[in-house]
Amino acid sequence: MDPFEYYKANREKFLAGLKEWLKIPSISTLPEHKSDVRRAAEVVAEEFRAMGLDKAELIEGAAGQNPLVYGEWTGAAGQPTLLLYGHYDVQPPAPLEEWLSPPFEPTVRGEDLFARGASDDKGQTYILLKAVEGFLQATGRLPINIKFLIEGEEEVGGAHIEQYLATRPPQLQCDAALVCDTEMFAPELPTLTTGLRGLVYTEIEARGAAQDLHSGLYGGAAPNPIQALAEILAALKRSDGRILIPGFYRRVQRPSRAELDAWKRLPFNERTFLRKEIGSSALVGEKGYSVLERLWARPTLEVHGIAGGFTGEGAKTVIPAVARAKVSMRLVPDMRPTEVIRQFRSAVKRLTPPGIRTTVRVLSAAPASLVKTDNRFIEAAAEALAQVFGQKTVYIRAGGSIPVVGLFQKHLGVPTVMMGFGLPDDRLHSPNEKFHLPNFYRGIEAVGRYFSLLAGR
Amino acid sequence: MDPFEYYKANREKFLAGLKEWLKIPSISTLPEHKSDVRRAAEVVAEEFRAMGLDKAELIEGAAGQNPLVYGEWTGAAGQPTLLLYGHYDVQPPAPLEEWLSPPFEPTVRGEDLFARGASDDKGQTYILLKAVEGFLQATGRLPINIKFLIEGEEEVGGAHIEQYLATRPPQLQCDAALVCDTEMFAPELPTLTTGLRGLVYTEIEARGAAQDLHSGLYGGAAPNPIQALAEILAALKRSDGRILIPGFYRRVQRPSRAELDAWKRLPFNERTFLRKEIGSSALVGEKGYSVLERLWARPTLEVHGIAGGFTGEGAKTVIPAVARAKVSMRLVPDMRPTEVIRQFRSAVKRLTPPGIRTTVRVLSAAPASLVKTDNRFIEAAAEALAQVFGQKTVYIRAGGSIPVVGLFQKHLGVPTVMMGFGLPDDRLHSPNEKFHLPNFYRGIEAVGRYFSLLAGR
Repeated sequence: MDPFEYYKANREKFLAGLKEWLKIPSISTLPEHKSDVRRAAEVVAEEFRAMGLDKAELIEGAAGQNPLVYGEWTGAAGQPTLLLYGHYDVQPPAPLEEWLSPPFEPTVRGEDLFARGASDDKGQTYILLKAVEGFLQATGRLPINIKFLIEGEEEVGGAHIEQYLATRPPQLQCDAALVCDTEMFAPELPTLTTGLRGLVYTEIEARGAAQDLHSGLYGGAAPNPIQALAEILAALKRSDGRILIPGFYRRVQRPSRAELDAWKRLPFNERTFLRKEIGSSALVGEKGYSVLERLWARPTLEVHGIAGGFTGEGAKTVIPAVARAKVSMRLVPDMRPTEVIRQFRSAVKRLTPPGIRTTVRVLSAAPASLVKTDNRFIEAAAEALAQVFGQKTVYIRAGGSIPVVGLFQKHLGVPTVMMGFGLPDDRLHSPNEKFHLPNFYRGIEAVGRYFSLLAGR
Repeated sequence: MDPFEYYKANREKFLAGLKEWLKIPSISTLPEHKSDVRRAAEVVAEEFRAMGLDKAELIEGAAGQNPLVYGEWTGAAGQPTLLLYGHYDVQPPAPLEEWLSPPFEPTVRGEDLFARGASDDKGQTYILLKAVEGFLQATGRLPINIKFLIEGEEEVGGAHIEQYLATRPPQLQCDAALVCDTEMFAPELPTLTTGLRGLVYTEIEARGAAQDLHSGLYGGAAPNPIQALAEILAALKRSDGRILIPGFYRRVQRPSRAELDAWKRLPFNERTFLRKEIGSSALVGEKGYSVLERLWARPTLEVHGIAGGFTGEGAKTVIPAVARAKVSMRLVPDMRPTEVIRQFRSAVKRLTPPGIRTTVRVLSAAPASLVKTDNRFIEAAAEALAQVFGQKTVYIRAGGSIPVVGLFQKHLGVPTVMMGFGLPDDRLHSPNEKFHLPNFYRGIEAVGRYFSLLAGR
């Protein structure tokens, strides 16, 4: 039997299997769901065994860490080896009352499957499982070698996978990684994500007086740490979005003319984006750059949260002793996190007004990543997608960060192919998350074709 | 019998009476103490009846409001009428574990009486009660006419007293008010407070996108309301304290040469103030003005609280939809709250960056107040204090606001004499609040002498 016929013949079985898996509330951010998280991992290991992998095991981490699920089939001597990544943990479903059907009772309405994790990332991970299953069940072999690494701490930023990758385990040797956790740029438009921004995430603490003071008695002589933070934040970035940290842009390069031209041809409408996705009165950002370039290829500085003093109902005339802000910078390729951290610390120090002490704590740091499109793993992926969707594959970047992509580069020395089948309106992390079922089936077929196209390259 | 002999002979009885009153936890900010608050009011009314006033009654307000306690003795035809103000409600005692003796078990250690409300304001209010009692009990009459108005919502900013004063009740007709709720500038230094700053308290809300956004997906194009607030706050005030709102200083006048010279002679040490009261690395504020002038006679702008976005542990990459800040301005004499509010609103509007909507809500507004020192009520008060303390009375201002002083001016058309017997280290609103007992007894005597000196002026 042909694996592609197997895919077609088993659609209902695939959907039923995915639904069963989605019923498990594997919410990694909520401790009370610890056993559900483990159960979701065990389902993956059982699937591995059932489909006929050579190896299927849970890799345990330190106490409290969720297991990695590892599986491999390496019977294609002389062929490339692909590492397949996904995650089995999901976001919490709150607010529950906004779901049209319960988040852990997967429900099909029209062509969509609604459930927490439907798209992010159980549905997309299941594509990888079923693509491999098709070959092994229909033909007893795969055209290339594959290794699965499915994690359970993606939504919680857990350290297990990084700690494991840092040991550079020999069994993870491979030529490239395939991550199935991104989106298509638009419905029907086959998409490969070739670049991600990096991230340096910090917390600034500003301290003034030794204790909270009454603004009547001390206002005019006592330093105010909220005011100091406001001054620092306003001086770090111009209101048009230009970041004022000395040296910050030194290594920033514009994308190639060809890449920028390709972005211009994408179906993107600035007014629709403003109205439907942002909903504010105007877009902001640096002059001279398109919206997509600002989102994908320009570094940014954003305040994510700020807290200090009295914020309850009514009026309290306090000058607080302390205020804090969470500030991150998105990095583009070539920017070095350690250098950016140094520049940021020194800028904050220089901007700190008299009477105030500031401290900067770095919570996370990861560089940007960028894959060249003339890489054979990208070329084959583009071809596979084009065959299945009947359109030329587009290359986009993403403004966010997928830390594991940087880790694969750093610890395994391999590039990552980001082939995603989510849609922009899948409502990841929100009520009524869904997965477009035609993309589920086409995804399985595309990954299968990818395996075939990679053989012999 | 002479009233001043009565004062001396009854010190122990006065202290015992005050202690009984202090045992009642009349905490107006905590609803579970509603009946204690009322009991504290009833004690005042009972004292009024026992000392022999002509009139003693509770004035009830709207449902849930705490009663005003009114009392009067008006048998001194042709003599001035003084309105005596104090409050019977107290602040909550938390944190309880820091009290050396329980807050509602009044305890004498050395020359100090420790209890919540000992100084603010039950102890000082009791001075007014006992000063009147001395005359009525010893001589059956007072040298002037007096009217008591003791409130129970001072610590909670309640509206009852303002609503009552706004009706301009005929029984409140008087020539001046005496407020016993302030401090002496230093131990042994008889002090009259002649000026208070006014206050305009606002909340600024900034809104950007219609909902929280992911900074990876939208950072670089979406407006950030925290950043906008930071820009607005930084642009409202220079880091040296100069307020940049157009027209803001138009009506600000410097105090007279004589008043400024008198402040220079006060026992004030900038280094001690910085080290003991503020505890930061430096003082801030406008160049060219002394610390006391900055605190008492210069307008200020302070942020009291700010909130927006994610402020928990760890990192969340959100661009929040909304952020809020509480911002107040302290006003000096001649500045008009309505004008300042207009200037502030228009400055915030002008400083609001593209993509952001701001709204300004005014939570309270009151002008500054200033009493001329050549007023006969002030002159007599200064003389009474000097006689009792054996030193020349100093005139100071205070940087805070006592709203009732402005209300007496506005609704009754009378000036207020602020004669206070608290000390700077009385720890108002903090654990281990105390009242210096020698000041309690000297306060009673000083108020008694004040009555005598006012007669015939």
